[in-house]
This record gives sequence, structure tokens and C-alpha cells, in this order.
Amino acid sequence: MSDDISAHLRLTQGPVDLSAIGTDAAPGFEGSKADGRAALAAMGPELADLQERLWAERTAGSERRVLLVLQGMDTSGKGGVLRHTIGLVDPQGVRITSFKAPTEEERAHDFLWRIEKGLPAAGFIGVFDRSHYEDVLIARVRGFADPDEIERRYGAINDFEARLADEGFSIIKCMLHVGLDEQKDRLAERLANPEKHWKYNPGDLDERALWPAYREAYEIALERTHTDVAPWHVVPADKKWFRNLAVGQLLLDTLRGLDPQWPAADFDVEAETKRLHEESPVQ
Amino acid sequence: MSDDISAHLRLTQGPVDLSAIGTDAAPGFEGSKADGRAALAAMGPELADLQERLWAERTAGSERRVLLVLQGMDTSGKGGVLRHTIGLVDPQGVRITSFKAPTEEERAHDFLWRIEKGLPAAGFIGVFDRSHYEDVLIARVRGFADPDEIERRYGAINDFEARLADEGFSIIKCMLHVGLDEQKDRLAERLANPEKHWKYNPGDLDERALWPAYREAYEIALERTHTDVAPWHVVPADKKWFRNLAVGQLLLDTLRGLDPQWPAADFDVEAETKRLHEESPVQ
Repeated sequence: MSDDISAHLRLTQGPVDLSAIGTDAAPGFEGSKADGRAALAAMGPELADLQERLWAERTAGSERRVLLVLQGMDTSGKGGVLRHTIGLVDPQGVRITSFKAPTEEERAHDFLWRIEKGLPAAGFIGVFDRSHYEDVLIARVRGFADPDEIERRYGAINDFEARLADEGFSIIKCMLHVGLDEQKDRLAERLANPEKHWKYNPGDLDERALWPAYREAYEIALERTHTDVAPWHVVPADKKWFRNLAVGQLLLDTLRGLDPQWPAADFDVEAETKRLHEESPVQ
Repeated sequence: MSDDISAHLRLTQGPVDLSAIGTDAAPGFEGSKADGRAALAAMGPELADLQERLWAERTAGSERRVLLVLQGMDTSGKGGVLRHTIGLVDPQGVRITSFKAPTEEERAHDFLWRIEKGLPAAGFIGVFDRSHYEDVLIARVRGFADPDEIERRYGAINDFEARLADEGFSIIKCMLHVGLDEQKDRLAERLANPEKHWKYNPGDLDERALWPAYREAYEIALERTHTDVAPWHVVPADKKWFRNLAVGQLLLDTLRGLDPQWPAADFDVEAETKRLHEESPVQ
């Protein structure tokens, strides 16, 4: 039922018009919220199995790994995806890296320096909560880098991601596409609920006021960095359940494509079995 | 029903005799396997809520964090605890550090050097899959360090953990106590199932042959490093469901004891609400 979500979300080549992509839609899924939640839960066992195989493969020297990049405006639900979708797999095999405003040390290096350090090791599902794309999004909107440098970065990102793909990374890039009105509701909810005040920052409204500039920066970034080895997906994010399901489906499709296999024994199974059963009394 | 598990598992002061602690027991819990699994699942929401509060607190400058240390012989189920118990909380707030045989660089430093680097940041639940205790366990049994150095380490560990406690760490130390026969069954299962061959290593049998030496090393380590700020718990681990439940209960009790609070807003809620609702049209 949810098998063609991925195809619906994958960006096509060419100019990107985010205003033409509905934020409240559930493309490729015909079902209710309850159906969507059930569909996500139903993915759990297969996701967990595939993740364990990927994890096992690394013990036989495989370099394969997954990198899920989550981008989106404030309240678009990066944290919700981590909790509800990534929470379905064994935490041992997951590495989450959150990128905040760069430190002074990070700013003294090329923008990809800190990204390299956050990459998942072989066998892991790595998740970037924000990423190197901030360096062509907020950096562009706020003028943190000059236009020549921003321009250079699109190419640098494509080179970087191509290198990762060569090294065994399967890259899934998701822009969580939340609507302006939905964002307002979510910010209002954070303000209305004392248990959510910690999630609110007055700067959120300053960023919100720059919405059109962010939309344009996203459109340019998506168009310039949508490649065969690291394609973008625009995930309608007003429906939380669809957002979680959609990212789950993208992850599932990627892992299915990898088709990781249990590694063969690198020891003599029969001899070891004999050794175990014929051991001298230990205790 | 499971509230007094923790008290049963906590080591008492004085000499430790592991052979007197049943590996197949379920101390403090009166119920079946199904009851135990249900009890663990029932902890999920409270664990998740407390974890989120701890996570939120850090945004207001709290230095508090949890460090769960998992030790145990091969097959005792450190991985199972990570999957089933730690998997109940938001993966964003968890940092798992697995300690394998030290690298050459790590061996060139004091044994606690790599441990420091694996510590959780404020707000996190950190989990050590093996730990600095390997440096008084395998290091003692295999003679990787001379006796004077091993002797020094017990005190160094106590000093280290006392410092962590001062810095805001709540430390939970668990020895997953698996029986010799149960370990044999689990190794046999790994050998019999090609999907589990990757988990088996011929070295596992060499370690198993040293079982009495490991038991002694554990007994000494537990006795010497059982302190008020970092007490040991011996968790019977033959019943996987009890092992997972017991660690869940220890984590839950620790978080309840911390009683983390939602931080108060550091901004003017009313003014921000007004700003949000009176904003100029953005789009």
C-alpha cells in the first residue's frame, strides 16, 4: 500500500517550485492516519532485520552504510522522525549527528570539516539532524558567507556526496516540507504548553519572517544538489504520521536495495561445534 | 510489581561470591515471561517522558546525565539490553559507546583515556557496552597489565567515577550474570544458525575456558569498586526477559530519582505569543 511513496517523493530534475508541492498531502498512500501509523509499525520487523544484516556485514569487512539527511524549517519534525521512525531499529546500529550553529573551531575550517567527523562508520545507519545543507541555506539567507563561497559549495557538496557514494554510503536526503500555517500552529502550541517552552526560541520567529528567502534557498539547493547518487526527496510534513511513514519507506526501500546478507562463517563451524561440546568441564 | 527489583539486585558491601547468586532467578519479580515483557513495555512511556525531561533540562544548563555500564561474559546479553530496553527511549537522547580491544593509540595512553572520550554529554543517557572494567577483567585474566598496575586501577576507577558523580553523572553499573550452561546453549545456537555465525568467534571458547578466572576477576572488581555513588548490580541474565526488565527498572528508578523538570521559559511567553499572532503576512 505504501510501496510507491518513495517514487512520489523523489524530486525530478530541473527547477524546483516548493509552492507547487502540497505540505498537507500524503502522496502514494491511500489510507487514514491510523492506517499510516499501522503501516509504519508494520515496517518495524523488516527494518530491524535489514539493519541487523547491514550491521553484521561490517564484521566481514563491508564498507556499506546508510546516511539519512534530514533538513527542514523549524517544527518540520526532524526530532519526530528520529523518535518514531529511527526508533524502530536497534539503537546500537544508529548514529545520530545533530548540527547546531558551528563553533568557532568549526568556522575556522572548511564547512565540510565537521560533517566528515559526523559521518557514520561502516554498518551504521547514520542520521544527520540538519547537515552541510545549512551552509547553503541559513548561510545564504543570513549572508554568513559571500556569494562566491555559497556558489562554490553546491559543487563541493556534490563532489563530497559522490565520494561518499563511492566509499559505500547510500545517501537519502529528505526535505521535511512543512506549511507556513502549520508552522504557526506548532509554534503556538509550544508557547501555550509550559512543557514545550524549552523547544521554543525567540529566534524562531525571526527565521519565520524570512520564510520566502528560505524557500528560495531550499529551491536552489535542491535543484543544484539533486544527483543520481544522492537524490532529494520532498516529504510533505504537515501530517506527522505521513512524514514518519514516508521516511520509514525511504529507509526501507534503501535497505531492500542494499539487500545485505548474513556473512559466511570465517571459521570451521563443525570443528567449533565439536570443540564446544567436547570441552573439558570448566567449572 | 517490579518496584523492588532494584533493591534485590544491588550488591551489598563486602566480599562477593557470584556462585551464590542464581543466574536463572528473577529476584523481586513475581510473574511469568509474558508478565515480565508486559512490565517492560509498560515502562516505556514513563522512561520516554523522563528521558525527554532530562534532555530538556540540558537546554537550561543542567549538567545531569546518566551513565549505564554494561558488563558481562560473552552472550550475557549486552546487545539485547540495548535493543529491548534502551530501544524504549528516544534515540536522540542516547549515546552508546562500545569498547572493543584497545587500539595501539589507546594502549599508548592511560586506560581511562578512551573512556573519557566515550562519556555522554549533559542530558544524555550514555550506555557503555563493555567499559573501563575490561581493564581489570580481561587485563587481569590475560595478564595484559602487571599486578601493580591492575591494583592501581581499582582506586583509579573509584576516583574517576567519584569525579563523574560530582560532575552530574548518575552511574548505574550492571554485571549481566549468565550461567555457564546457558552460555553453552547460546554459543551452540550461534553455531547452529548460519544467520548467527557472524556473532561467533573461536576466541569465545578460549575465554570460556577461563571462566573461573573471570569469575574471580569479576568478584574482585565488584567488591573493590562498589561505592555509594557508583554501586554495582548483579543482574541474573539467563532469562532474557528478566535481564531486560531489570535493567529497565534500574534505569527507571534512577531517572525517577533525578526527577528532571521541564525548564522554565527564558523568554517572555506572552510577548512571544503576541508576536506570533500579530506577525505581518509572511508569504
